[in-house]
Amino acid sequence: MRQNYKMILQYEGTRYNGWQRQGNTLDTIQGKIEAVLGRMAGEPVEIHGSGRTDAGVHALGQVANFYLPAEIEIQSLPESGKMPGMSGKKSVRMKKTDQIRDYLNAYLPEDIAVISVEEAPERFHSRLNAVRKVYAYRIETGARRNVFLRRTIYGLGQPLDLEAMEQASLLLIGTHDFKSFCGNKKMKKSTVRTIYSIDIRQDFGAGGVTLRFTGNGFLQNMVRILTGTLIEVGLHKRSWQSIREILEAQDRQMAGFTAPAEGLCLEHVFYD
Amino acid sequence: MRQNYKMILQYEGTRYNGWQRQGNTLDTIQGKIEAVLGRMAGEPVEIHGSGRTDAGVHALGQVANFYLPAEIEIQSLPESGKMPGMSGKKSVRMKKTDQIRDYLNAYLPEDIAVISVEEAPERFHSRLNAVRKVYAYRIETGARRNVFLRRTIYGLGQPLDLEAMEQASLLLIGTHDFKSFCGNKKMKKSTVRTIYSIDIRQDFGAGGVTLRFTGNGFLQNMVRILTGTLIEVGLHKRSWQSIREILEAQDRQMAGFTAPAEGLCLEHVFYD
Repeated sequence: MRQNYKMILQYEGTRYNGWQRQGNTLDTIQGKIEAVLGRMAGEPVEIHGSGRTDAGVHALGQVANFYLPAEIEIQSLPESGKMPGMSGKKSVRMKKTDQIRDYLNAYLPEDIAVISVEEAPERFHSRLNAVRKVYAYRIETGARRNVFLRRTIYGLGQPLDLEAMEQASLLLIGTHDFKSFCGNKKMKKSTVRTIYSIDIRQDFGAGGVTLRFTGNGFLQNMVRILTGTLIEVGLHKRSWQSIREILEAQDRQMAGFTAPAEGLCLEHVFYD
Repeated sequence: MRQNYKMILQYEGTRYNGWQRQGNTLDTIQGKIEAVLGRMAGEPVEIHGSGRTDAGVHALGQVANFYLPAEIEIQSLPESGKMPGMSGKKSVRMKKTDQIRDYLNAYLPEDIAVISVEEAPERFHSRLNAVRKVYAYRIETGARRNVFLRRTIYGLGQPLDLEAMEQASLLLIGTHDFKSFCGNKKMKKSTVRTIYSIDIRQDFGAGGVTLRFTGNGFLQNMVRILTGTLIEVGLHKRSWQSIREILEAQDRQMAGFTAPAEGLCLEHVFYD
């Protein structure tokens, strides 16, 4: 018998070559987590992410699932972890899911954190069962760099016409063929997706704008190309009406630039 | 004739050996800024900070002043900076103070930023004229590490009794001899300071507490020792009433531990 587990993850993607494991290297988020889980389980463990974030992209609420033998015993942690008190009350019997979470947090690098681990139904799959995802894209529009946000914001350094971007976003919302916004030229599956909302707002006090995209799923680089296109609208390098032509063309060349990875964060994945 | 300038600075102190220049090394904030200013001016420039932040301490609004020859011409920046658009409109005549700000931001590392530069009266001195300072100390009280805040928060990982801390803080507010809270054993000058307020609040959604200290000045390590002592009160390792004895003893050994540098941030310096 194997038990399926669902976990929620945070990571600052700056140092990593994206989510997806590539061979045996440890420079991916998936690779890092699988290495620690494998050590914990004493056997290889594969994790299934809700989607592959690109190199440099962050996550506030990535979801992944994995299977462990039902009878597995989690080794208790040494008394002093990185955070005093985290493992302070070992005498109290902890839930196995919390033991797994604490084990992972004790051995993962400090730019990856496990928020929660819970038991999931046997057939739960974090990618196949996801019904809605929320991505945020942060843009610094002022000339003054905020040193504390620099790893998670794109330093555009120019003001944006948010009204024009709002108009453009209304044309993107809904169910469309987003082929023009797909970074994978060889994509053979359907490029039809539904965007439920695009929220555009001034943020971070003085100098920032956050775009927040909610949809049933996103193609490779799609949020970054949507953002790049909306930035070009906001800089008056293209009209908001041009969105119609871009969607119709089904041609990546028609859309805007791929906004840099550092501004992007996978915030939430929802399940029924 | 020399012109005095006042500048406001942000820095993430993680990589640095504190504010104060030590010899010719470039691992201090002061050293880094002076090196860039000296290159700009073609002669050595000394900057005077409002206070020396410790190694690893951050600043949201550090203030420093420096003198430049009144007739100085600032070299214009190359057209493409790190932030596209920052130097986009060179044809418009910029104010000299903005030129200095942009020059510094173009050549300083990305964890140091100049928020503003303005002309100051000849006798303005950022340390001697400061009348009020605000420091914030951030504590992570939950077991879940927030990966995006990890450089600017102290990972305590235990809940705190904020009411007890509040009681203790009331005994600290006012004008006292804070010798027990001074990290410099050889301090020969007065250790009397006035704390105007200590604001204690739950922050960062789930897991954090921020202490915010406002006073007319702080001794070496004083905010970190105050914080360490308040944390011990919040963990019930000492009573809030013990603050009275600590103040009276005028003995560093009586106070609590020195909370780690990473949680501390100099937020504002005020002048009349």
